[in-house]
Amino acid sequence: MKVYFDNNATTKTDERVLEEMMPYFKEEYANPSSMYDFSKNSSNAIREARVKIRDFVGAKNEKEVIFTSCGSESANTAIYGVLSHNRNAKHIITTKVEHACVLNPYKYLEKRGYEVDYIGVNSRGELDIDELSSKIRKDTALVSVMWANNETGVIFPVEKIGEIIKSKNPDTKFYVDAVQAAGKIPMNVKNTQIDLLGISGHKFHAPKGIGALYIKSDAIIKPLIKGGHQEFGLRAGTENVPYIVGMGKAAQLAQESLDFENSEVKRLRDKLENGILNSIYNAKLNTSVYNRVPNTTNIGFEYVEGELILLHLGDEGICASSGSACTSGSLEPSHVLRAMGVPFTALHGSIRFSLSRFNTEDEVDYVLEKLPPIMEKITQISPYQDELEQLKLSKNKAVL
Amino acid sequence: MKVYFDNNATTKTDERVLEEMMPYFKEEYANPSSMYDFSKNSSNAIREARVKIRDFVGAKNEKEVIFTSCGSESANTAIYGVLSHNRNAKHIITTKVEHACVLNPYKYLEKRGYEVDYIGVNSRGELDIDELSSKIRKDTALVSVMWANNETGVIFPVEKIGEIIKSKNPDTKFYVDAVQAAGKIPMNVKNTQIDLLGISGHKFHAPKGIGALYIKSDAIIKPLIKGGHQEFGLRAGTENVPYIVGMGKAAQLAQESLDFENSEVKRLRDKLENGILNSIYNAKLNTSVYNRVPNTTNIGFEYVEGELILLHLGDEGICASSGSACTSGSLEPSHVLRAMGVPFTALHGSIRFSLSRFNTEDEVDYVLEKLPPIMEKITQISPYQDELEQLKLSKNKAVL
Repeated sequence: MKVYFDNNATTKTDERVLEEMMPYFKEEYANPSSMYDFSKNSSNAIREARVKIRDFVGAKNEKEVIFTSCGSESANTAIYGVLSHNRNAKHIITTKVEHACVLNPYKYLEKRGYEVDYIGVNSRGELDIDELSSKIRKDTALVSVMWANNETGVIFPVEKIGEIIKSKNPDTKFYVDAVQAAGKIPMNVKNTQIDLLGISGHKFHAPKGIGALYIKSDAIIKPLIKGGHQEFGLRAGTENVPYIVGMGKAAQLAQESLDFENSEVKRLRDKLENGILNSIYNAKLNTSVYNRVPNTTNIGFEYVEGELILLHLGDEGICASSGSACTSGSLEPSHVLRAMGVPFTALHGSIRFSLSRFNTEDEVDYVLEKLPPIMEKITQISPYQDELEQLKLSKNKAVL
Repeated sequence: MKVYFDNNATTKTDERVLEEMMPYFKEEYANPSSMYDFSKNSSNAIREARVKIRDFVGAKNEKEVIFTSCGSESANTAIYGVLSHNRNAKHIITTKVEHACVLNPYKYLEKRGYEVDYIGVNSRGELDIDELSSKIRKDTALVSVMWANNETGVIFPVEKIGEIIKSKNPDTKFYVDAVQAAGKIPMNVKNTQIDLLGISGHKFHAPKGIGALYIKSDAIIKPLIKGGHQEFGLRAGTENVPYIVGMGKAAQLAQESLDFENSEVKRLRDKLENGILNSIYNAKLNTSVYNRVPNTTNIGFEYVEGELILLHLGDEGICASSGSACTSGSLEPSHVLRAMGVPFTALHGSIRFSLSRFNTEDEVDYVLEKLPPIMEKITQISPYQDELEQLKLSKNKAVL
């Protein structure tokens, strides 16, 4: 059996998305910027996809949406785009738990004369809004906060944060990385103070290699990729028509599945989570049970190595992860869990399970059957036998 | 009948390319950066595609190749990547006839303290190498020259230019935009002084939305899109596995078709060109007959409007263009033809026909049948009747 519980890393392309894309790989291959009739179908297809993304993020106008090649490009375009347009303000605020595609541009900018404040989170992964509020200055060019965290699924109150930012400095621009929120919770940017918002298609069943960036009509940016006049002059490069069409379709399907995500997918996630927490004594939840997306759980297994758990899960055909795929391969423990103050004893043994609408109850049951014996085996070879014994005793006591 | 003679704008995706991509849209959807076995097929597929691009451009090592989302991203990555790494040298040399994805970054850099020299071309579209040589200075950070021009097909001697650059300043980096050379002429960067070279998949029958950048092993750049560690840390973003696989396959097929391009496609292009020049008295070739890629011709039709020709061709199902799709829609005449000194009388009536291996002799015959009566009709409504009469007389005299 293969169980794919790593949907925050990437998702399977929905067959209906692929079907919608196919004509644009075949007969409709015209360059949408060309002048002849042959290009009309491809340029119309882009327009229709843009409308679908507009509705997906809840923008006022489809001209507030540009297509990019991925979530990372959306983030880089937003960040550099805002700062290139406004070169005087040199202060930035972000959080300690952002994705690498946000943190790495800021690390780079710190070497180029920018001052960056990184706001912390509590042990449940919730943002310190008061700290964020207190950091907003006259020269704050940009605040960027993710909508939902990729590792924990914790949702940040970006609507409220937007209000706070603009009340303190109307000139500060607000970028929201919504890569892990899209398709999991409703988005409606038009009634918010969000200036820019990035999403990535492959997190909601479009292919890998397509993203979008919402840019509020009064927010001005400079393009990151300069050249031709595509995407209203904000993103050069011949349009990836099949993927743009596919992302539009995927957004529409995600919108339609939102209730299902928040009922059925959530039910399966909760069953998996409770099943693990109830059956494995060294397991503990690394995240708030409230305010999080319906598909994600992050569980710390104390006194064991996460890589070893993943290896054993892999042997049973179960795909999960110890953090972001974008930083996998590194031996550094997750910066998100460290920011949450997850103790050393659980930091190295934390596993993210992230579901999608394609997962089934059978798959959850399968993992709940396979994981306890795996953990039994791994704990037996842990060098922390005394601590584990202690933990087992205290758990049993709590149950009694 | 539909005749697609605009292959420099974009090409049809080869069915064999699409077939190769399909498994990566379906069962092999893993994130290639993930740690489990499921991701091995996708990460191996990327490695194999990288080897194919290495062989296509003639690089020494596949680690000198990174994948991008398009030719424009390749160019922007090369340009900003070199300049971000070396912040002291502030002089750049390029040509007047580069693509917008090269010229626009330079226009932007001129506002940021860089000095840019734009080298001219002669009436056949050939580069003034002596002028280029004379402009190389101690503080020349970058020279960028396209391999083949998108509008005229004229080939620039980049190997020779590389030698000149390095003999004058070994620290100057050399970027070659090979978007229109790839698949049309052999490339072998390993024996050249080319430091960086950009290509775009959709110009040789891969889909739109994938590009590559060759970076010689000793050339150091900073990434344009910062974030995850993908592409050796030089391009963040989850890898577009299907398109990377497709571009590898397309490169392999293009390599195999190179002889065909330079014999059969060239024969058809020459037949089309000679047919037009012989049957239409106000037609003249806008480009050198030597040193150009085998698929492109650019013909000026004097005293008429190019858009009107395209409109009539379009009515007959024939797709051609008046210049780059990336700048289409603008009423400005082509910057390439202006740099060549094409006279005003032909500047507005210049048409590019660009063929591919999928075009047929029947299609050439069809255009040669349809174009003369179209031109007859259009010249009759031209306001330049006296000049056209004069032209007709002098052409007839030349034939006698």
